[in-house]
Amino acid sequence: MALGRFISFEGIDGSGKSTQSRLLAESLRKLGHSVCQTREPGGSPGAEEIRRLVLEGDPDRWSAETEILLFTAARRDHLEKTIRPALARGEVVITDRFADSTRMYQGISRGDLGPLVNRLHDLMIGVEPDLTLLIDLDPALGLNRAVARAGAEQRFEDMGLALQIKMRAGFLALAAAHPERFRVIDGNRPPEAVAADVLGHALAHLALA
Amino acid sequence: MALGRFISFEGIDGSGKSTQSRLLAESLRKLGHSVCQTREPGGSPGAEEIRRLVLEGDPDRWSAETEILLFTAARRDHLEKTIRPALARGEVVITDRFADSTRMYQGISRGDLGPLVNRLHDLMIGVEPDLTLLIDLDPALGLNRAVARAGAEQRFEDMGLALQIKMRAGFLALAAAHPERFRVIDGNRPPEAVAADVLGHALAHLALA
Repeated sequence: MALGRFISFEGIDGSGKSTQSRLLAESLRKLGHSVCQTREPGGSPGAEEIRRLVLEGDPDRWSAETEILLFTAARRDHLEKTIRPALARGEVVITDRFADSTRMYQGISRGDLGPLVNRLHDLMIGVEPDLTLLIDLDPALGLNRAVARAGAEQRFEDMGLALQIKMRAGFLALAAAHPERFRVIDGNRPPEAVAADVLGHALAHLALA
Repeated sequence: MALGRFISFEGIDGSGKSTQSRLLAESLRKLGHSVCQTREPGGSPGAEEIRRLVLEGDPDRWSAETEILLFTAARRDHLEKTIRPALARGEVVITDRFADSTRMYQGISRGDLGPLVNRLHDLMIGVEPDLTLLIDLDPALGLNRAVARAGAEQRFEDMGLALQIKMRAGFLALAAAHPERFRVIDGNRPPEAVAADVLGHALAHLALA
């Protein structure tokens, strides 16, 4: 994409993506980079409205297919209103989740909808991050951390350990299929150690860019 | 589709689709048919929520592509929650607008997005009505009628006569391309005369089914 660089964090619930997004944004700002820190689902006013429509209320109110359409609508708005303008200004965009999360959560967890998710992505989004940092974590640890939190995303945490294991394997398979874009980081360590690795990968990428 | 029959009304704003939907539903019920009368955007609780998200607020808040995704999400919910269950019960489903409206309004009025609308439809909806009744009307008359009304759909009426003329031509071209499904009805007449033609086409279709 244009000018700036587009970095995503991915990983199972409780992997520390949000913390690591924030820490990376702080470190890069200290080093003089302009940074746009954002997240999905959401990341623009319209996308945040769609996020509320999907995540609040009965988790079963939308079919998997309708949910994929709503998340894709939110992503399109996020891309147009937040990500592309920031890249055009030359900023480093750091997003907590992007399309890979839809590939995992909607593509795997609610039936075998991976091919549908990919076709819809190709048709309506068509963009991948320049660099994806996958925070890899013991699924049991992730589940414990996630359950300890509360909030609107409770629906994802309710799905249990079997799903966390499946999601972790799915993310690792995605990383193996796209080594040019993915870096896998061991998340089973203190946040500062993880953050040091994250910053190293990000700086190496920015230096090459 | 299964068991029941699926009938849509289409036409430019002010063509009298809503009145004709209601009159057809009443006539068929008097003749002993079970009828599900519905509309788009909307037609199910979830789809009505998405309708509000799209139609309320600044008309320019969503890009054409995001709007197409949101309308397709609403249509998927409408199809799953309202249309398919009614057809499975053997009912006649009468909807005021379906995918042809997206082909016209999002496909034509906001740029040349027709191919994108069709590809998204094929991927995520994949269903057409058994019979589509196009109420054809003098665009100036339609615009006057539409402007005389108020409400959340004001955004469509604001687009002016040039667009109404383009929409009318687009609907007629669609009807010509799909003669097996479309019947074009002259809407420049009193509602009772239009309703008589509508009922005739519907009964002929139901008799053949």
